[in-house]
Amino acid sequence: MSPMAQSIRLAVIPGDYIGPEVTEEALKVLSVISPAYDIKVDPTHYDLGAQRYLATGEVLPDTVLAELREHDAILLGAVGGRPGDPNLPAGILERGLLLRLRFELDHYVNLRPSRSYPGVPTPLASDAPIDFVVVREGTEGLYVGNGGVVRKGTPQELATEVSVNTAFGVERVVRDAFVRAQGRRGKLTLVHKTNVLVHAGGVWSRIVGEVAPEFPDVTVDYLHVDAATIFLVTEPERFDVIVTDNLFGDIITDLAAAVTGGIGLAASGNVNPDRTAPSMFEPVHGSAPSIAGQGKADPTAAILSAALLLDHVGEQAAARRVEDAVTADIAARVDAPDRTTSQIGDDIAERVSN
Amino acid sequence: MSPMAQSIRLAVIPGDYIGPEVTEEALKVLSVISPAYDIKVDPTHYDLGAQRYLATGEVLPDTVLAELREHDAILLGAVGGRPGDPNLPAGILERGLLLRLRFELDHYVNLRPSRSYPGVPTPLASDAPIDFVVVREGTEGLYVGNGGVVRKGTPQELATEVSVNTAFGVERVVRDAFVRAQGRRGKLTLVHKTNVLVHAGGVWSRIVGEVAPEFPDVTVDYLHVDAATIFLVTEPERFDVIVTDNLFGDIITDLAAAVTGGIGLAASGNVNPDRTAPSMFEPVHGSAPSIAGQGKADPTAAILSAALLLDHVGEQAAARRVEDAVTADIAARVDAPDRTTSQIGDDIAERVSN
Ligand SMILES: CC(C)[C@H](C(=O)O)[C@@H](O)C(=O)O
Ligand SMILES: CC(C)[C@H](C(=O)O)[C@@H](O)C(=O)O
Repeated sequence: MSPMAQSIRLAVIPGDYIGPEVTEEALKVLSVISPAYDIKVDPTHYDLGAQRYLATGEVLPDTVLAELREHDAILLGAVGGRPGDPNLPAGILERGLLLRLRFELDHYVNLRPSRSYPGVPTPLASDAPIDFVVVREGTEGLYVGNGGVVRKGTPQELATEVSVNTAFGVERVVRDAFVRAQGRRGKLTLVHKTNVLVHAGGVWSRIVGEVAPEFPDVTVDYLHVDAATIFLVTEPERFDVIVTDNLFGDIITDLAAAVTGGIGLAASGNVNPDRTAPSMFEPVHGSAPSIAGQGKADPTAAILSAALLLDHVGEQAAARRVEDAVTADIAARVDAPDRTTSQIGDDIAERVSN
Repeated sequence: MSPMAQSIRLAVIPGDYIGPEVTEEALKVLSVISPAYDIKVDPTHYDLGAQRYLATGEVLPDTVLAELREHDAILLGAVGGRPGDPNLPAGILERGLLLRLRFELDHYVNLRPSRSYPGVPTPLASDAPIDFVVVREGTEGLYVGNGGVVRKGTPQELATEVSVNTAFGVERVVRDAFVRAQGRRGKLTLVHKTNVLVHAGGVWSRIVGEVAPEFPDVTVDYLHVDAATIFLVTEPERFDVIVTDNLFGDIITDLAAAVTGGIGLAASGNVNPDRTAPSMFEPVHGSAPSIAGQGKADPTAAILSAALLLDHVGEQAAARRVEDAVTADIAARVDAPDRTTSQIGDDIAERVSN
């Protein structure tokens, strides 16, 4: 038990389709773990996502954003409508909701751990144990929405996208990654494309080089993003901490999830390490309309996201207990292949309470 | 035999380290195949790459570029110095030589076939046959070198990279991809990140949608680049032709090479389909200084690049014969594991001449 009871004002954004299904299981596990560690979780639900947008035209009202800010952390399920829905303009939820939260709440560390679990089938032939963390920059790069179009829809159309990289933005995420590497196996890999993106690559390389001497126990190496994808399938066990820009991080973390057993297990944290605003935790997977309502969604990634949340609010012991329960549950899956979303949640909750 | 003898003025850029080693084998195979198809190959060697730069400070003199233009095709081995060589500024060869050639010679179709070969070990557990082609745009996107830095080296540094996408540039590569899909299994996948890069994504989506009705026998689908990396390891057999932008193409083709048996087998063509300048063919791999001079380099990708070259200059039958010889050689590799670069070249040349 913690010496002092902690109360967590938790904003919950269940979202669309399987989002609410997996969120319910994450909350179930949180409700079981919290009394054991003298934590009080005080959840408030916010209805945001495709369904709200389609019903009301609202994506993220300023008043809701202001309320979200008043919380200690945010747990998100998944948002997104049916693929190709003509009433959902491309990128409206991504840029209006998900990315807006990352930017407004200064989630500059997008934390994505990847580990293999014995017994979980992966697409790789090798079963060498995989355990690394991608520290993806979350507030710069090509995600800033800095671009435009001229002569739209004509044969002379020109569309641009601008990747923005500041020393300020790069240094803070690089420092975070060094600290994480120090607390792990002491290896940091910068992934970029410095041979082509020489301007952006220059600032990333320079800062990694400048910060490195402050962390003499961390060894640093570098891979171009294209080569990194090769190593992620041929030798993923070589990685410990990867630090990379927003877009490269997006790409390699989906690949990392695939090689470690699928996005059903991949958790993520959108972290504001300075705690000037709440951090947000969410599974890497989407809202999966095609499997919604059938109890088929795997809530494991949402539950592991709740563990990242506990870790972030200082409840390391509780976080480890949830992770251990998940590991044990996964190890038992061969014998329990056809559980529903809520059965998996029940089983993990029970392991947590034992 | 072709009804009319064809003479190919071939510019050869062997490059650095293993570049010359694999190029020699590709030329060996070309010299064996050409009399059989009444082709005359007339090679001129050009000394370009890291070693020339380090010795002379020259990357690609205008006079050399002008001479290269006078050829029917270019065969390149690999260029690049030792990793981290302080005398080689980041990107100097990439931007000054490789990319400059792509831009100057208008290589807007960067063609990268990926197929699995029975018997070649891959990192994937599944051995479902893989056979797809990536049509990567080669003259736009983030590769245009449109970016800059202010307050360089200071805590206020700002570095930008601009992705440039024109309707003109996108339409021509999309049309090329549709034609290729029509000649294959009739399936085209656009890979982009339209939910975040809404401006660039908009022009790509619009043009694919507009061109599609002209190719009613081609079915079209779309994947975000992050999701595409997942399918490339979990279900690569689903792909036929992928069309994508310059940077996404760079990333997914390295991954594609990895899942089909490694970059030792991956060939590529930098193609100018309008034939206003020579196209260039090269293995996807680099100059690999660490294995140079030991006869360890696999010349297969260089030889397959020569087959792409033959195909491009209209010698389809000769191209197929080289590819078949490579396939047969690969199938026999279990029994001949330790051949040198030149032994592999000899064996493939012998199969070609039989
Ligand atoms: C939904 C999308 C905006 C998002 C991203 O690109 O960051 C997602 O792919 C992710 O990785 O969280
Ligand atoms: C060497 C580099 C400039 C090049 C690229 O990024 O295009 C390489 O990775 C490739 O794929 O041909």
